[in-house]
Amino acid sequence: MIKPTQLTFWFEFASPYSYLSAMRIRDLADRAGVAVIWQPFLLGPIFAAQGWDDSPFRLYPRKGAYMLRDMVRTARDYGLPYAQPDIFPQNGLLGARVALALRGAGHDPAAFVCSVYARQFAQNADISDPATIAAALGDAALPEDSTAEAWIARAQSPQIKQALRDAGTTADRLGLFGAPSFSTGDEIFWGDDRLEQALRYAQA
Amino acid sequence: MIKPTQLTFWFEFASPYSYLSAMRIRDLADRAGVAVIWQPFLLGPIFAAQGWDDSPFRLYPRKGAYMLRDMVRTARDYGLPYAQPDIFPQNGLLGARVALALRGAGHDPAAFVCSVYARQFAQNADISDPATIAAALGDAALPEDSTAEAWIARAQSPQIKQALRDAGTTADRLGLFGAPSFSTGDEIFWGDDRLEQALRYAQA
Repeated sequence: MIKPTQLTFWFEFASPYSYLSAMRIRDLADRAGVAVIWQPFLLGPIFAAQGWDDSPFRLYPRKGAYMLRDMVRTARDYGLPYAQPDIFPQNGLLGARVALALRGAGHDPAAFVCSVYARQFAQNADISDPATIAAALGDAALPEDSTAEAWIARAQSPQIKQALRDAGTTADRLGLFGAPSFSTGDEIFWGDDRLEQALRYAQA
Repeated sequence: MIKPTQLTFWFEFASPYSYLSAMRIRDLADRAGVAVIWQPFLLGPIFAAQGWDDSPFRLYPRKGAYMLRDMVRTARDYGLPYAQPDIFPQNGLLGARVALALRGAGHDPAAFVCSVYARQFAQNADISDPATIAAALGDAALPEDSTAEAWIARAQSPQIKQALRDAGTTADRLGLFGAPSFSTGDEIFWGDDRLEQALRYAQA
């Protein structure tokens, strides 16, 4: 049974709106007294199952142009930096596996995840580059004897690869179709706009 | 030039999220000191131009199932009744034309529009039925000498049919792709979630 004061935060590193939620969820969840499970997943297989073979930002050019404008306005409203990266959408596979490796070893992945997002959406970094991931691991206050290289190696292990596939299976079972999503019990919420509502349901 | 304290509210009668905005916008705009232009339009041609040949609620069953759940939760959060109508999506053509006829004659269409929405999304009425539209006109505090039949006849005039086509042309020029949308100057906002933000931009 999932405890009612837990909320699972489903994020995809390629997703700009997941960035907004990643940067906001710690403060909001602390104030709400809700524990957050940081759950990376990949949207590619989920989108393919809906019949979408590309980012929704690119599939529908008009909607995509709007979303970029909306991101700039909404990030500014939140007081967050936002700069559309040159590479978009990006490949978040390595970051997702490292986040799972951290969680699997009992570390809170939040600082790492937020650093990856900030590097991508504020500093124009390529997050498929292991050097970007290593730099983000450097921001994560990990034990001194654990190197970025060791985490990146661990992220390629069969166990971690399987854990990411399992996340996709669970996302599919829950009926997720986009990111960010939030789940508590059987309730799912889609979109950064629903973060506050999801926290209220997690409290209830 | 559009005055900066005006916000155009683009609504499609078939759209559940437009219902949420219609029921919320009067109070919010009054408090913000923003004048609202109630602008009906039809999503059919807009969706067709994006390559969508049906309601997004039906095109993507998983997303559609989510949206129905989200509507129930979010309407409850707002203190609004919501019951998915048996006919969905509905044909809002007659209602859109009547709203334009009211506006064209100098009447505020808000009360009529909200009555049509409430009948559709809380009372399971078929809004393509002229009797439903006539009942909604009865809620609109119109001059005693103007009958519902006269408004419905006026809604079929060439001028009103053209006014609705012109609305579609303007929506297309602005880059709208869904409903509800809000526009002030060249800024467009999509979704009931963006109503408060759109009002802030209209004030600025």
